[in-house]
Amino acid sequence: MYDVQKIRADFPILAREVNGKPLTYLDNGASAQKPQVVIDAITQAYSMEYANVHRGLHFLSNLATEKYEAVRGIVARFLNAGHEDEIIFNSGTTEGINMVSYAWAAPRLQPGDEIVLSVMEHHANIVPWHFLRERQGVVLKWVDTAPDGSLDPQAVIDAIGPRTKLVAVTHCSNVLGTVVDVKAITAGAHAKGVPVLVDGSQGAVHMPVDVQDIGCDFYAITGHKLYGPSGSGAIYVKADRMAEMRPFLGGGDMIREVTKDQVIYADPPLKFEAGTPGIVQTIGLGVALEYMMGVGVENIAAHEAGLRDYAQAQFAKLNWLNVQGQAPGKAAIFSLTMEGPAHPHDISTILDKKGVAVRAGHHCAGPLMQHLGVSATCRASFGMYNTREEIDRLIEALELARELFS
Amino acid sequence: MYDVQKIRADFPILAREVNGKPLTYLDNGASAQKPQVVIDAITQAYSMEYANVHRGLHFLSNLATEKYEAVRGIVARFLNAGHEDEIIFNSGTTEGINMVSYAWAAPRLQPGDEIVLSVMEHHANIVPWHFLRERQGVVLKWVDTAPDGSLDPQAVIDAIGPRTKLVAVTHCSNVLGTVVDVKAITAGAHAKGVPVLVDGSQGAVHMPVDVQDIGCDFYAITGHKLYGPSGSGAIYVKADRMAEMRPFLGGGDMIREVTKDQVIYADPPLKFEAGTPGIVQTIGLGVALEYMMGVGVENIAAHEAGLRDYAQAQFAKLNWLNVQGQAPGKAAIFSLTMEGPAHPHDISTILDKKGVAVRAGHHCAGPLMQHLGVSATCRASFGMYNTREEIDRLIEALELARELFS
Repeated sequence: MYDVQKIRADFPILAREVNGKPLTYLDNGASAQKPQVVIDAITQAYSMEYANVHRGLHFLSNLATEKYEAVRGIVARFLNAGHEDEIIFNSGTTEGINMVSYAWAAPRLQPGDEIVLSVMEHHANIVPWHFLRERQGVVLKWVDTAPDGSLDPQAVIDAIGPRTKLVAVTHCSNVLGTVVDVKAITAGAHAKGVPVLVDGSQGAVHMPVDVQDIGCDFYAITGHKLYGPSGSGAIYVKADRMAEMRPFLGGGDMIREVTKDQVIYADPPLKFEAGTPGIVQTIGLGVALEYMMGVGVENIAAHEAGLRDYAQAQFAKLNWLNVQGQAPGKAAIFSLTMEGPAHPHDISTILDKKGVAVRAGHHCAGPLMQHLGVSATCRASFGMYNTREEIDRLIEALELARELFS
Repeated sequence: MYDVQKIRADFPILAREVNGKPLTYLDNGASAQKPQVVIDAITQAYSMEYANVHRGLHFLSNLATEKYEAVRGIVARFLNAGHEDEIIFNSGTTEGINMVSYAWAAPRLQPGDEIVLSVMEHHANIVPWHFLRERQGVVLKWVDTAPDGSLDPQAVIDAIGPRTKLVAVTHCSNVLGTVVDVKAITAGAHAKGVPVLVDGSQGAVHMPVDVQDIGCDFYAITGHKLYGPSGSGAIYVKADRMAEMRPFLGGGDMIREVTKDQVIYADPPLKFEAGTPGIVQTIGLGVALEYMMGVGVENIAAHEAGLRDYAQAQFAKLNWLNVQGQAPGKAAIFSLTMEGPAHPHDISTILDKKGVAVRAGHHCAGPLMQHLGVSATCRASFGMYNTREEIDRLIEALELARELFS
């Protein structure tokens, strides 16, 4: 039995008030709150167990290294990677996708080569590819979503031409909540000899991920959305692709030997982890993933599906509210606009007065906004600790905004 | 009056034991310990004040943004930058120098162009330049240190030729403690029209830094050595140089507009800060720098100069101990080797049994190790909380190692 109140009690911030009202935190798409175990792990690391990793031979350094390196196995288990050496630590999905762009794609792609993207990608999975367009003449090919916000895997596969060198798609839209069939896309792309990068920033938060089952070549996650520390993250890179990557960031730890004349690089994955890493953030990420797996990622997904269904039923009663994205099986992420003069920024400000935290704006998804024909939406995005009562509060606050602006 | 015991009491980890002995933490060159105010700031941020920054309109997001953005001014004050917009946040010096390599140097340097480096650079200030050698035929020109470990500024200036496009030098050697006259180097390099990058990883920890007085173009710092969180950092980039940089990492927040066909980038410094940043780490870095400035960076430097003098006097009595680096005015960083069969790794292991944490190895400074003719050293590096008693404990432990191996 999923005890959401017990889970809420694990997150200290959820007990606080905002503007004199209980906090209703529905901005999980931007970042998730942290359970006490994560906060405690950070405190413990800095108070009692801190030193730099890898390079030491003293007790604290060995202890920190052991705790830090153990997280590689935790991430591998969380994503069901075949081997923990396929996990590269980083500061989040943005760094992960940039690494693929700089280290794998840039040296391989020629002018006129293509990258296939969906129109609902986040800027983190767009701008690194625009760099290759600007700098070396790579062509971006876009696949639009259907009117309900769903993405036809076959449309993505059909967009792959003889010059296509990579497919880069999200597992779950941060705006619409659409879940993408990345397994079907990967199968179709691989049949044409094209690797697939999956942006798992949202996907890994809302559903169990099995990178071996998906079969993708790259799967990027970001720790702060996974109830872990800011500045933590990782990317799964299939061993064959990792062997094809040149180094990205240069510095300590990623080398075997440096002379005046040359560098001999370390073996992967260390080859792709330069300098002192986010030691304590990574330790915290491990604790966050263990927390999620302890609750059960399947159970979290089922709980959130219940919230989605309830929210959809309530939203359906409000004929002045537009919900962008109605794809079947979508995650509990809702982009809302209202008929009339109320701008999403105004709505979110009124919601905030009622303690309801949502996000207004383009959600780092410019091409999707243009495709939808809106400049901004008001996004309510749910997490493992949200409740139906919070949906009721959201609705009440939306009704107040509706009144004030009608 | 510098009250080192009062300062020690601010750092919880210093009260712990290691291997049944009081911790003598002399591995500050690798990473520094954190005062309680930093740990508390992290706890407070995650427990009560957490949300993503920049993109929100709700209370917690505004609060987090305000605390996060305030750190830009703190870093600017710490480095005496002319304007806080010359500060770019990152995960540390490694990312900072890589950014300069990718965003400023790579698009500007042609095959045969030169970068002048000192032989005592850290790999973080070597490998990013080796990338340019490997990938685009840039030539690295090395300036050796004098036998006492000092670096003649004129030798660096003399190494600048008509093809030199950048001088990249450390402010303070992480191996020898040598302090480099980066102001003189910058004056000479600028007279020849060549910009200067200063690796401030160690320098900013051990002495007051005034980037306007130095006059350098880039000054990189790393938070975890500055008593701040792991994964925090910043780089000062002079406005003129920032205007010359193309974007480095692509993603959210660094754009004004993204369409299928193009990107319009945000103004600096946001243009160089992609995606969700290390929110809480950066907030913690601000607290750490405030803590240092509260004690007084001049006072810290004076305290450490006292430790240096005392250590040098004690080491001088041990005729079986070699101290690498004797440059006048050096920082309290000592690379030690022993006559005889004791390898630095063995020595550090014995020291660890006595609770003395030092680092053994090449200290991410391959070319310097080759120049010195050693494969490794045992490094004792001091910080604001270290004491003369700890130097005595170090000496005792070294004597034990000497006995065991003789």
